[in-house]
Amino acid sequence: MTTTTTTSGAPQPIAVDTNGADGGPDLVAEGARLAGTPVELFGGEEITNEEDPAFAVRSKPDASIVRAAKAVGAGEADALVSAGSTGALLAASLFHVKRIRGVHRPAIAVLVPLPGKPVLLLDAGANVEVRPEYLVQFAYMGAAFMETVHGVARPKVGLLSIGEEAKKGTDEIVAAHEELAGGALDFAGNVEGSALASVDVVVTDGFTGNVALKLMEGTAKAVGGAVGDAIRSGLVSSLGGLLVRGRLGRLREQLDPNTTGGAILLGVRHPVVVAHGKSSAEGVANAVRLARRAADEDMVERTASALAKGGALRSAPAASFATSHD
Amino acid sequence: MTTTTTTSGAPQPIAVDTNGADGGPDLVAEGARLAGTPVELFGGEEITNEEDPAFAVRSKPDASIVRAAKAVGAGEADALVSAGSTGALLAASLFHVKRIRGVHRPAIAVLVPLPGKPVLLLDAGANVEVRPEYLVQFAYMGAAFMETVHGVARPKVGLLSIGEEAKKGTDEIVAAHEELAGGALDFAGNVEGSALASVDVVVTDGFTGNVALKLMEGTAKAVGGAVGDAIRSGLVSSLGGLLVRGRLGRLREQLDPNTTGGAILLGVRHPVVVAHGKSSAEGVANAVRLARRAADEDMVERTASALAKGGALRSAPAASFATSHD
Repeated sequence: MTTTTTTSGAPQPIAVDTNGADGGPDLVAEGARLAGTPVELFGGEEITNEEDPAFAVRSKPDASIVRAAKAVGAGEADALVSAGSTGALLAASLFHVKRIRGVHRPAIAVLVPLPGKPVLLLDAGANVEVRPEYLVQFAYMGAAFMETVHGVARPKVGLLSIGEEAKKGTDEIVAAHEELAGGALDFAGNVEGSALASVDVVVTDGFTGNVALKLMEGTAKAVGGAVGDAIRSGLVSSLGGLLVRGRLGRLREQLDPNTTGGAILLGVRHPVVVAHGKSSAEGVANAVRLARRAADEDMVERTASALAKGGALRSAPAASFATSHD
Repeated sequence: MTTTTTTSGAPQPIAVDTNGADGGPDLVAEGARLAGTPVELFGGEEITNEEDPAFAVRSKPDASIVRAAKAVGAGEADALVSAGSTGALLAASLFHVKRIRGVHRPAIAVLVPLPGKPVLLLDAGANVEVRPEYLVQFAYMGAAFMETVHGVARPKVGLLSIGEEAKKGTDEIVAAHEELAGGALDFAGNVEGSALASVDVVVTDGFTGNVALKLMEGTAKAVGGAVGDAIRSGLVSSLGGLLVRGRLGRLREQLDPNTTGGAILLGVRHPVVVAHGKSSAEGVANAVRLARRAADEDMVERTASALAKGGALRSAPAASFATSHD
């Protein structure tokens, strides 16, 4: 439970923005109902991808995403879900849900379901440019998410880079590496793109993270497509072909960020889930369930506590939100 | 033919460094002979990955890579091939083969054999940090390579970024985009990681490029591995399984930078080919053939000419190497 809802012991609903999904508000409403947990729906005025997010959020107080974020900030809802413009969701969250005290920048985290083992990748696009201290915070935030929401005990954290050696990578990565090597996390050092599954959490800047996700999606599609060609050309028996295609289709779907539903904004004072615009009703339901689970597991408080214990917060948080539950 | 070999009209051999390949100098020598074109082999002292490349190249004048690069710089060989330390090859090329006048930084270009269409990606790791003018030059250099060596007429060039809009990406990308949009190339704007095959040349910084290549390799392996699991679990008939595995194995191999053999250093005064350490003899032969072809097609002269015509050289090259053949 979050600090701002301590006036009542009972959980608050999940605030769901019904705008922005390709399937329209009715599909989002249906998905929210399917989730099996109380929700509050916010419809009406929409902020689109074409608008400047910060300006739109400031100048449209009646927009659905703004009212939903305000409800969460005011403690009338425990978490926020939107399939609308990611930029608008990020801006509304910064203004109205607000950062955890001492956090430099929130980051978008995506659970990449690599065959065999899911790996959390962050930042997936919130921060095109980063400083070393942002990367260090992302490491703590990602580890806390995997621990609280996915039950991974002491997650292994790596920095995405171009070689395993501590000195490989950009200046920001080298500095973050040095800081994390002496820190409280189970830090595995640098990981290369070919070895993501060797860790539970992969930390990178928002530019590289976004490019990486789309490359994985594109490669999975290309490999799958080529296998499909082999099947259609009659090189493979039809039964075998059908089975392989089913299996590949699932893999492709899992690797497609459109359908992971696992994107979450970390570093803000309540859980914020980034549902994809192409979500099905079941996708929206999964996003609402993820938000509920993050709230129930006190993800935010445990994240703040881990950042404080690791000495990774911006300033000594004497009486801050970060340590009020510690 | 290169400017420095105009004393004789006859082609010079390809200089091959026999050190650095996992298979040892004998395998490299065998591969060089298989290429079917005159070579000059350089063996003896080796510079390894563990040494500082610039220091090692300066302090070991007898190292094979240094002598081979000097032979190329002196016009005694038309191009350079090495399967040794990429850092040492880069340093030896900078010192002894030298940059084309007006080129800021050489870049490593890799031909990614995406199913259906090969795409050239650069920089694959020579420059961890870039400035906009480097990216602009990479665009011209990559296009000239695809045109001269692979016969692609007017190659489509894109900047790897996190959205198609001109303003998406790092400050460096936005500035390079602006420059290229008004330039002489067939510029397709920004491309996302999921759409690499929409262009012939993808330009990025050496950090993102290196991460991208390894991610593609890792994803192709993961998808292939999962299909292998389906086959082993008996879900797929053994004949169908064998055929799919063969097909996938080839795809995986193609996507593996170890076996593409297509890495070339662009922006220096003679062709320099980066053969992979894990090359087979046939891989070495392909690297030598690529070097021969780049020399025969006047890749360097045509690159310099394209850079000059596009106004992308560092300073007006009045009587420089760059325009001497223009």
